[in-house]
Amino acid sequence: MKRWSVASLLMVAGASLAFSGAVRADEGMWLVNKPPLEQLARHGFKPDAAWLENAMKASVRFSTGGSGSFVSKTGLVMTNHHVASDMLAKLSTPERNIMETGFLATSQENELACPDLELNVLWDIIDVTDRVKAAGAGKSPAEANTERRKMMATIEKEIGDKTGLMCQTVTLYQGGKYHLYCYKRFTDVRVVFAPEKQAAFFGGDADNFEYPRHCLDCTFFRVYENGKPYVPEHFFPFSPDGSKEGDLAMVFGHPGRTQRLNTMAHLAYLRDHAMPRRLDGLWRAEIKAQTFAGRSRENARIIEEELFGIANGRKAVTGQYSSLLDPKVMGRKREAEQRLRSAVSQNAEWNKQWGDAWDKLAAAEAARAGWIERAAALGGLDSPMFGIAQTIVRLAAELPKPSAERLREFRDSNLENIYLELYSPAPMYPALETYRLESSLLEMAETLGGEDPAVIAALAGKSPRDRAEQLVTNSKLIDPAERKKLVEGGKAAIDASTDPLIRLAAAMDDTARQWRKKAEDEVDAVERESYAKIAAAKFAVEGENTYPDATFTLRMSFGPIRGFEADGAKVPAYTTIGGLFEKAAERAGDKQFDLPAMWAKNKDRLKLSTPYNFVCTADIIGGNSGSPVVNTRGEVIGLIFDGNIDSLGWAFAYSDERGRAVAVDSRALIEAMKSVYGAETLAKELTGR
Amino acid sequence: MKRWSVASLLMVAGASLAFSGAVRADEGMWLVNKPPLEQLARHGFKPDAAWLENAMKASVRFSTGGSGSFVSKTGLVMTNHHVASDMLAKLSTPERNIMETGFLATSQENELACPDLELNVLWDIIDVTDRVKAAGAGKSPAEANTERRKMMATIEKEIGDKTGLMCQTVTLYQGGKYHLYCYKRFTDVRVVFAPEKQAAFFGGDADNFEYPRHCLDCTFFRVYENGKPYVPEHFFPFSPDGSKEGDLAMVFGHPGRTQRLNTMAHLAYLRDHAMPRRLDGLWRAEIKAQTFAGRSRENARIIEEELFGIANGRKAVTGQYSSLLDPKVMGRKREAEQRLRSAVSQNAEWNKQWGDAWDKLAAAEAARAGWIERAAALGGLDSPMFGIAQTIVRLAAELPKPSAERLREFRDSNLENIYLELYSPAPMYPALETYRLESSLLEMAETLGGEDPAVIAALAGKSPRDRAEQLVTNSKLIDPAERKKLVEGGKAAIDASTDPLIRLAAAMDDTARQWRKKAEDEVDAVERESYAKIAAAKFAVEGENTYPDATFTLRMSFGPIRGFEADGAKVPAYTTIGGLFEKAAERAGDKQFDLPAMWAKNKDRLKLSTPYNFVCTADIIGGNSGSPVVNTRGEVIGLIFDGNIDSLGWAFAYSDERGRAVAVDSRALIEAMKSVYGAETLAKELTGR
Repeated sequence: MKRWSVASLLMVAGASLAFSGAVRADEGMWLVNKPPLEQLARHGFKPDAAWLENAMKASVRFSTGGSGSFVSKTGLVMTNHHVASDMLAKLSTPERNIMETGFLATSQENELACPDLELNVLWDIIDVTDRVKAAGAGKSPAEANTERRKMMATIEKEIGDKTGLMCQTVTLYQGGKYHLYCYKRFTDVRVVFAPEKQAAFFGGDADNFEYPRHCLDCTFFRVYENGKPYVPEHFFPFSPDGSKEGDLAMVFGHPGRTQRLNTMAHLAYLRDHAMPRRLDGLWRAEIKAQTFAGRSRENARIIEEELFGIANGRKAVTGQYSSLLDPKVMGRKREAEQRLRSAVSQNAEWNKQWGDAWDKLAAAEAARAGWIERAAALGGLDSPMFGIAQTIVRLAAELPKPSAERLREFRDSNLENIYLELYSPAPMYPALETYRLESSLLEMAETLGGEDPAVIAALAGKSPRDRAEQLVTNSKLIDPAERKKLVEGGKAAIDASTDPLIRLAAAMDDTARQWRKKAEDEVDAVERESYAKIAAAKFAVEGENTYPDATFTLRMSFGPIRGFEADGAKVPAYTTIGGLFEKAAERAGDKQFDLPAMWAKNKDRLKLSTPYNFVCTADIIGGNSGSPVVNTRGEVIGLIFDGNIDSLGWAFAYSDERGRAVAVDSRALIEAMKSVYGAETLAKELTGR
Repeated sequence: MKRWSVASLLMVAGASLAFSGAVRADEGMWLVNKPPLEQLARHGFKPDAAWLENAMKASVRFSTGGSGSFVSKTGLVMTNHHVASDMLAKLSTPERNIMETGFLATSQENELACPDLELNVLWDIIDVTDRVKAAGAGKSPAEANTERRKMMATIEKEIGDKTGLMCQTVTLYQGGKYHLYCYKRFTDVRVVFAPEKQAAFFGGDADNFEYPRHCLDCTFFRVYENGKPYVPEHFFPFSPDGSKEGDLAMVFGHPGRTQRLNTMAHLAYLRDHAMPRRLDGLWRAEIKAQTFAGRSRENARIIEEELFGIANGRKAVTGQYSSLLDPKVMGRKREAEQRLRSAVSQNAEWNKQWGDAWDKLAAAEAARAGWIERAAALGGLDSPMFGIAQTIVRLAAELPKPSAERLREFRDSNLENIYLELYSPAPMYPALETYRLESSLLEMAETLGGEDPAVIAALAGKSPRDRAEQLVTNSKLIDPAERKKLVEGGKAAIDASTDPLIRLAAAMDDTARQWRKKAEDEVDAVERESYAKIAAAKFAVEGENTYPDATFTLRMSFGPIRGFEADGAKVPAYTTIGGLFEKAAERAGDKQFDLPAMWAKNKDRLKLSTPYNFVCTADIIGGNSGSPVVNTRGEVIGLIFDGNIDSLGWAFAYSDERGRAVAVDSRALIEAMKSVYGAETLAKELTGR
């Protein structure tokens, strides 16, 4: 499972809620300030406030999407290799390809500083529902949306200035509640240990989202503050004992987005429009990236990380799409909706307040289907260099406005993130950028047609290939210093710039903004309004003891370690390190299953019966990657890195029949460090032994 | 380059013509009964009638799409490995995978009989223009189309019965001429020699459509008649001397389809609708096939050939699409059309006869863009087993009608082909068929939406995966004997059949036929009528000394062996066998460039300076794969197997600036047989030495 990319977040824009009426035994991505105490008690566990506070403050969010946790008092952060791999790729060169070879810092001085990684630790949650709701009261949906956003920005700045924390307003229960999440930010983050990708991602695309698995999908960072290792007050120590089948597992992480309470009309939009379009885009992107990689060894290296992300997304969306074509899943959804609508329609007061929500939403989604393709094509080119140009052009237009009136990503509380990425010294490769721009120009032509004025303007009389080459060759944006100069020069510098990418982004910006505004006003606002009504109706009909849909904020999930049945056979909860060697032999000849050289070499030193990966029923989704799995004592027993195929439908509905979260066993982490990688020092730091 | 698949032929349905007005030096896929004598004379070559007759009767068409030639008096036929690979895959098993290992018959008894391969040799051409045209005279476009088709079937049967040859009417110059092509058919064809795929397709997808190349893309068959090797009167002997840069090369083959004279509106339809759709489908198919292949070693084997075909098609269409986005190409096309239209409009008589052709065509293409996606989705599922079911269902409906009134592929002259394929004992694999059906059901849902009645009916209350499994598990069509029983039972057997695939094909057939009829009446007929007018206009304005667009019938191309310039550097005409070893070393680590084991082992025996592949300017396209390259003495000097990237635009316009045909050198064929494969006997049969 991959952190959610911006693109996939956009695809599923418009979340919804999930309610207790249908909540199953171990279902739920619970708010840390509204934990599932009743459900945990049924498992015989009653966490106290200190336990919960420690869990909250030991949990880490990767701003690029993904989860992690402090696991030592010396600032070690544990996450997945595939959450870290973006950084690992940026830190790799043809001569030192740490994606391929792995990395172990032999001392703190040798730890590798990341160019543009930001970690967030949740420090406080403030309920700001009343202030946000009041801002939108008595207005049209679009106006109310705008006013609420302004109020969110105002509150974020106000509390941020007061506390020095980074504050973000989170819309929960689709507008039922607004909570301000206040984070400590860390940007000096260094790589301590990462295995080679072949060990982290053993089985490749074939095994991704499958179980049984044999992956060491981990990376350990160390957080620094003022040039010294950070000493966190809160962290999860490694369990000395590990786990066994049946043990209760708690997962703290940042699930990206679920859509469990989408209306049938909204699901139909996803099934019939958004997902087929998204799949088309992913198939296309994957083939284009493979083609680029096939041209040379260096091409393969510089696109490896991107290619993995695409393949991962393709497999995830394929699974989600399948679940929307499953008559069982859709049948249950339909029945639940009918029950709720019927309850509302039978109560005159409810019907007046909320009865129109479903039809309004259906109309908005149907309308969107007619223009979303064009809107996406005109929103800008899908290329990192174009993205930089667009950000620079927009910064010049947005910064002069008050924070609350800017495009939301340019509000004060988010500016540091923008600059961190914009001025990142991470390498960019002209060959890769040319390929990305050519591919994106082609996609624009494929979508809009070769004679669309926007296509003609973007191509400027050239073929896509020639135009891409010209843009990359003649632009200076590959150099962060040039970007800074333009940003500091403000609007005047942008207007005067002859950089062809700046000119292209500027030329496209009016149209791109119009389409974005249309989407915000005619879809987002209607969704917000309708789902707020549906949420209220569900609270009234089914009660309030529930969790909101995922919002890429900290959540607690739980469930026992337990195997499952597939194709009539039992799949045990645990695999072992020995299983890795067996699988590699069975699939000999398939590169994805090549045994990592270090493991082959050290086979004799390894205790083959060591549990390697395991599954539990905790309710997770993309964004949970890198989440710690802890026991009731708050000790690490595992590291979430995937969900099985049946968990992909959890985007819309949880079921523990066959769906499972997949984790690396903490004992395998230690065993591998000691017996394969010579990382005894690190193992000692984690276990104290 | 790959033979044209049925799907790609459909995509470019509606061919057109090319005329002398713009014919460049070595341009042209000339009719063998209207050879380019004037152009050849400029190269100092004057073939006589005997030379041309020998060339015609030594040339071989592979009914699956592809070219070949008789190259010995003992019935040896030379073609490409990638033309033969469909057969090689069918003849492979997990235990004897001849795609992977290659194959050499140690004696005639050991030659491998192909289950369903048909070869055609052109024996006679009869001009039937008058009869066909008369049949359509004075009718509406749709009626005229129908009547002409009936007349074609009538003529085919009449001459076929008289001569015992298989006769097919070919529409040339888009209706300017109709010629009856009469073929000898051969169906007892056996594999004599094929190298391992790694040698035939060295460099894989990365090198496909590129140059320089290092491929031994050949297979040799032997044709049998009455259980004995066929002794052809006409064949191309291997040249004892080979070739050198500057030599004139003649190519005889079966180019599938060009669209050199499409109107701008028709090209716009291809660029903005047909090609983006086709690319979407190819990207999708390639990823799905890769996923299937990744699941196990056996899966990889049984889908290898299909995967290659998809990747090849994807690269070809990508190149063609790029050329339609090239302002230079489109600018020339636009100017030529404006010149012609202007000449027509300035002559009142011409304008009256032909002046409306362009606008009518534009209207038909624009209308098609609105429904083609739906038509394709409702035309049937894209799966071999569904195809079998559909053929059986249609046979029962069509056979009772007179030949001339049937759907065209069921006319008498084509029935033997239908039965050959339908009763083929070639293996089918349930896992592969399930995957194909699931993928096709998913595609139908992606296109039409999950609530479309056709989707709901096709899925029958199941998920695509479950439905595909049910169809394959419960159908008996995997057994050719069952197919035969159903065909022989006629309509009664079909009506009584409970085979789920027969029932599904029968349920979908009315709708599928309606869409097909709509396409034939509203597009094909209009194209035929309009292009016939445009053809007449071009003849009038620009003269008649020209060649028609490709029609998967025998054509002669020619041009000197000559290198080209790319990215400012000279690309020499020839590569050498030594270059193979250099490239393998340079790209070490990329599987596509792994050195074939047999070649590594025999490196010391090989003369490394032997010319390996070469390029010439002969005008070819998909379908020419396997064409012999012969010198002025009618001797084999090479074997066409590809065109470079710049030749892909030849679908719409020829240019010898950088576009080249790519061939295996005949000397490399012999050298490899002798020094790598121990095929001295075969080499001797070819060279007499």
